[in-house]
Amino acid sequence: MPLVVVGSVALDTVETPHETREDLLGGSAAYFSYVASYFTPVRLVSVVGDDWPPQYTELFQSRNIDTSGLQVIAGAKTFRWRGRYHRNMNHRDTIEVHLNVMDQFDPVLPEEYRQCKFLFLANDPPQLQRKVLEQCPGAKLTVADTMDLWINNEREALLELLKRIDGLVLNDSEARLLTGEENLIHAGHRVRELGPRFVIVKKGEHGAMFISQHETYVLPAYPTADVVDPTGAGDSFAGGMMGYLAEQDNFEPKTLKTAMAYGTLAASFTVEGFSLDRLQQIDREDLEHRMQQYRRMLSF
Amino acid sequence: MPLVVVGSVALDTVETPHETREDLLGGSAAYFSYVASYFTPVRLVSVVGDDWPPQYTELFQSRNIDTSGLQVIAGAKTFRWRGRYHRNMNHRDTIEVHLNVMDQFDPVLPEEYRQCKFLFLANDPPQLQRKVLEQCPGAKLTVADTMDLWINNEREALLELLKRIDGLVLNDSEARLLTGEENLIHAGHRVRELGPRFVIVKKGEHGAMFISQHETYVLPAYPTADVVDPTGAGDSFAGGMMGYLAEQDNFEPKTLKTAMAYGTLAASFTVEGFSLDRLQQIDREDLEHRMQQYRRMLSF
Repeated sequence: MPLVVVGSVALDTVETPHETREDLLGGSAAYFSYVASYFTPVRLVSVVGDDWPPQYTELFQSRNIDTSGLQVIAGAKTFRWRGRYHRNMNHRDTIEVHLNVMDQFDPVLPEEYRQCKFLFLANDPPQLQRKVLEQCPGAKLTVADTMDLWINNEREALLELLKRIDGLVLNDSEARLLTGEENLIHAGHRVRELGPRFVIVKKGEHGAMFISQHETYVLPAYPTADVVDPTGAGDSFAGGMMGYLAEQDNFEPKTLKTAMAYGTLAASFTVEGFSLDRLQQIDREDLEHRMQQYRRMLSF
Repeated sequence: MPLVVVGSVALDTVETPHETREDLLGGSAAYFSYVASYFTPVRLVSVVGDDWPPQYTELFQSRNIDTSGLQVIAGAKTFRWRGRYHRNMNHRDTIEVHLNVMDQFDPVLPEEYRQCKFLFLANDPPQLQRKVLEQCPGAKLTVADTMDLWINNEREALLELLKRIDGLVLNDSEARLLTGEENLIHAGHRVRELGPRFVIVKKGEHGAMFISQHETYVLPAYPTADVVDPTGAGDSFAGGMMGYLAEQDNFEPKTLKTAMAYGTLAASFTVEGFSLDRLQQIDREDLEHRMQQYRRMLSF
């Protein structure tokens, strides 16, 4: 089942304690799409400027990612982000953000995209996410991401959005910020009471928590020793999760948990390289192999 | 199989954002013993002053905890600790420490204790832990805990101890402090290379990581919404783990993982009340029931 994602693609510069890499392929929708494409055809909606390297678009296309929704704006520049990781690799500072074309991003979905059943609204202003939602009236599963900026500055629009989506994916700190609740389980339920049927709280290196009316569970991150660049881990998580759900064409509780596990494993590969480097080295079989290890890890 | 534990018992005062409770039964060996007693007979070695409420000793005795190794020093005062939890309950400040009798703690194990096969050295100065170790030449499984104070101030003695024990249990921050490694997996292996066959890194609300030469795995904490007082969670974890191992009289890799799960669940009960309050309400069947839920949580 095809999966539509709307979000950013970007040129990232990433500084880790060991290395700095410039003009990397990045952005929430880039990581999401690439990972989801292990499972299902992906339809990407985003915008770039004419500085966008065409080989990045070709990379998407080589992976069964439909780029007809990727607008290229002549005379404009691609979204750029520069981040610096602290020594422990779990904290980072955003050093520079140039929204460039993303500042006027007003996604108009190609007609064939609008029939989608599975829709992911990557981190964008909630007003924009809502406009996308309205273009996909037949979506059966809509999941959104958000961030502290919108929680602080666009709270009303975010609360409106929450009433209209099935699932929300957010960080632990964002869940606390949105609800004022320190305990993550309470925070997750408070978010759920704002609208979505389920809430997934991402805890970075500590895994992710799932909360619905009848279920609360935690899956740990896969313990990889080779953390090169954590950028895109959360978007990869979402891509693996949504990709698997779209592949299965089903979002029953049991499928959702397996989907979270795939998201977890996709993220564990992403952090083992800069940008999509590590993902480009693996195929579905590698994901399945790690899934076996992960299931074994959680069995006793 | 009886299990010997050497460590502190204390009178704790705990301040949480909701409540302050004074003169609570606390201390590493108290939590450890109580939890381990769900699984196996426990032999407690510690010291208190004559201000120690006899009903606390009776509580131990009611649980198949042998207190013949609990010295009562006339004219002296029991170890006291006062801590204050931050709003998120994951961080705390130590407000007061009065070592009192613990300052001269020089454990001499009763003769029958010295034959023990399973020995836990709760957090004490490493020189003291080593003196205990030397009294138990027949121990088959010796596991120790430690803390930042000894890592910083008694490093040489700690390194000597590490060569003589089978397992070390420590916090994530302590593993980083001991090794200078930020990545917990690398840190765990570095600790292992200092001597112990296995290392368990406790991550508080995020669970625990196990590291041996051939295995690295993470088990998440059981997601309890009712965190009343986190004091003693780590000691309860160790008590559940060692108690189960002693009960099984075996410490094969498979048994170790199940033991870690029991430790995880014991800790999840401990944090649901002050002191041993919540533990006093549960029996082995409650642990088994939560174990079923935990196994279900980790299955997909």
